[in-house]
Amino acid sequence: MSEQVDLLISARWVIPVDATDATLEHHSIAIHKGRIVAVLPSNIARERYHATTETRLPDHVLIPGLINLHTHAAMTLMRGIADDLPLMTWLQTAIWPTEAQHVSPAFVRDGTLLAAAEMLRGGITTCNEMYFYPDAAAASFDALGMRCVIGITAIDFPTSYAASADEYLSKGLAARDAWRGNPLVRFALAPHAPYTVSDTTFSRIVSLSNELDLPIHIHIHETAQEIEDSLKQYGERPLERLARLGLVESQLIGVHAVHLTPSEIETLARHGCALAHCPTSNMKLASGIAPVAAALAHGIPIGLGTDGAASNNRLDIFQEMRMAALLAKVSTQDAAAIPAKTALRMATQHGAKALGLENDIGSIEVGKWADLCAVDLSPFETQPCFDPASHLVYCAGREHVSDVWIAGQARVSNKQVLQKADNELLGVARVWQNKVGSRFD
Amino acid sequence: MSEQVDLLISARWVIPVDATDATLEHHSIAIHKGRIVAVLPSNIARERYHATTETRLPDHVLIPGLINLHTHAAMTLMRGIADDLPLMTWLQTAIWPTEAQHVSPAFVRDGTLLAAAEMLRGGITTCNEMYFYPDAAAASFDALGMRCVIGITAIDFPTSYAASADEYLSKGLAARDAWRGNPLVRFALAPHAPYTVSDTTFSRIVSLSNELDLPIHIHIHETAQEIEDSLKQYGERPLERLARLGLVESQLIGVHAVHLTPSEIETLARHGCALAHCPTSNMKLASGIAPVAAALAHGIPIGLGTDGAASNNRLDIFQEMRMAALLAKVSTQDAAAIPAKTALRMATQHGAKALGLENDIGSIEVGKWADLCAVDLSPFETQPCFDPASHLVYCAGREHVSDVWIAGQARVSNKQVLQKADNELLGVARVWQNKVGSRFD
Repeated sequence: MSEQVDLLISARWVIPVDATDATLEHHSIAIHKGRIVAVLPSNIARERYHATTETRLPDHVLIPGLINLHTHAAMTLMRGIADDLPLMTWLQTAIWPTEAQHVSPAFVRDGTLLAAAEMLRGGITTCNEMYFYPDAAAASFDALGMRCVIGITAIDFPTSYAASADEYLSKGLAARDAWRGNPLVRFALAPHAPYTVSDTTFSRIVSLSNELDLPIHIHIHETAQEIEDSLKQYGERPLERLARLGLVESQLIGVHAVHLTPSEIETLARHGCALAHCPTSNMKLASGIAPVAAALAHGIPIGLGTDGAASNNRLDIFQEMRMAALLAKVSTQDAAAIPAKTALRMATQHGAKALGLENDIGSIEVGKWADLCAVDLSPFETQPCFDPASHLVYCAGREHVSDVWIAGQARVSNKQVLQKADNELLGVARVWQNKVGSRFD
Repeated sequence: MSEQVDLLISARWVIPVDATDATLEHHSIAIHKGRIVAVLPSNIARERYHATTETRLPDHVLIPGLINLHTHAAMTLMRGIADDLPLMTWLQTAIWPTEAQHVSPAFVRDGTLLAAAEMLRGGITTCNEMYFYPDAAAASFDALGMRCVIGITAIDFPTSYAASADEYLSKGLAARDAWRGNPLVRFALAPHAPYTVSDTTFSRIVSLSNELDLPIHIHIHETAQEIEDSLKQYGERPLERLARLGLVESQLIGVHAVHLTPSEIETLARHGCALAHCPTSNMKLASGIAPVAAALAHGIPIGLGTDGAASNNRLDIFQEMRMAALLAKVSTQDAAAIPAKTALRMATQHGAKALGLENDIGSIEVGKWADLCAVDLSPFETQPCFDPASHLVYCAGREHVSDVWIAGQARVSNKQVLQKADNELLGVARVWQNKVGSRFD
């Protein structure tokens, strides 16, 4: 007698990204009430389960939904507003003036909507978000049914959003309370960076993290300048300062981490910290090359992040997988550094571990939420195919993502985002194109 | 009274890549007998010209067709056959054994057909090809109506194709004779590399190049090992040896050129040599980072190449533009290195100059062949758009190419390659997937 399930997805290949490096052929995922109840050969699955819906993916590889471990979603509205500039010039002449003029709940709602649609269509099912107006951001992820971890941002300078670090934190915590009970919306503490946050604020954040069991999401050691400045101001490197203040613990997600000494890598590993590697952003802003292969060798979980669309300019984790693999090879002079399956693991399981969600997402395993991404390898530019994992990293791209599920719910089908019409998204973009673009006229 | 032309293409933006860095808005290209007869505002164009066909591209940017300055097209049949290996292991355990077993006129014909379709659909209108069986390669480019420069390969070891360097050259020259009169098929001399070609063969090639006015397309200074080996064997660096033999002249297209001293850059510039930069391949094989910004500063034309699909694994010049820009920034620690318009110029005008075709292709200018690529920036992942040149390099991808023309003939329309059905291409790939893949079973 067959067991009833909501959904059976049967694919040519399944790469579960579990404890093994297996690529399964002709396997099915049985899904019930949003969770994975079995991963098994398709011929057996059809005998064992009676599914309300069966989706067949005859030329596809099914992988865990990708995790974007660092982004500023609303910055899609400043996509390509200024390029080919060093970090501080870029911030001071383009990004900060635009933000000062335009950032508002509507800006964040609309920019995040555009970002979420772009990420979903590119196979990203979870993102770790850091920006202003967390409530507006959460509303847009919710509108598209995308899983998110929203930053409770803190920064020691005033913006239209908040006047003080305390106000940032209290508004962020209020947003967290408001979204409690929504299984797709989580929160993290998001102090912007060591150079913009005071010791007092950091101490408050450590207390909150311990009390509320929240990850701490922070930019660290992005540029050499930041380290020099900290040595001048505090007599210690930013990571030393964070360690003294109690942040260098297992809750930490350090973003960029371009400039790390071997002993800093050891410290991060010993304390169970995680990193978010953003190779495209680091290259585009000429920040440097993070020592990712060395940090992985120490067992540090390293997820992949796109950063915001203003410094990338794509929210595309396929691109970041390829870039992480290629950049590690050329920078270590070792073509074996970060092989394809490691890049895929970073973009899924490592991201989940960094967020403390490793029991819920990040791999295709029984009991986890069915956050899944199907990649169609039938087009001629992905032929022939001797190894689908290689193709995911080196050959295919987000344009080959056909279907996406979050907690077993279809969010992208046949390359279309289901919860919002393209026309509505384009209308939103047009409004801000005119508003934000007017400063260039 | 209006003038009759074959085709008028009217686009939201046109980036001609001429002597200026202009981005034109609402402009049209008038095309007659395959060549560009005018570039002018669309409202004026419609008064001045009566076109047999008008194509309207309301959300698109029209650019010169991209030039892939280095590839081994037939290697698509070994796409992803082996990854994450150093160059020599990769060659010795995967590529060479597969080639020894399979390479034949049918392999080259089919692999080149697949490559040409992939390149065309990605906006590449010309490629500089180096492999075996040039006649079979030319036939496949011709079948799809793609412009190509076919290598008359020479290498001092025997293959199924030829037993000696003399035989390689005579067969290549015979293929050139056979294709004479076809305006889309040109030839170049293609000695494989300094470490596989003897002094005697190089001398013959210099004579042929002078006599027949052919470019010389050669791998140089790809790896540090190659330079060390040459110092041991010849007591000179490969470029010194090539200079002594008379190859370092304006006909030279040096591929990779990862390891160059400042004085070698000066020598290449002084002699009017060109380079083909293959950033993805150099990263994937951990060969190193070519000093492209420095070489550009010396005025050397540097086109972009994908290399073969076995070491990339995409034949995608959009990817190479992005990679060239990003890699130059991070390696020089200068975010202004290789801005978007320079990357676009490398992928078009510099490639044409390297091939000696700068009067025929590489920009949208009156008198040149209408080799054109339209990129659709309407999808939401390319919104908003403040600068289409930035989007071409940092945001859009080959998946946004909608239409391609070569000498005014439509070759891709609405993302479909016109001269071959997808099914036929997939059938070809399937045959070789089974043959080539069988060694892994």
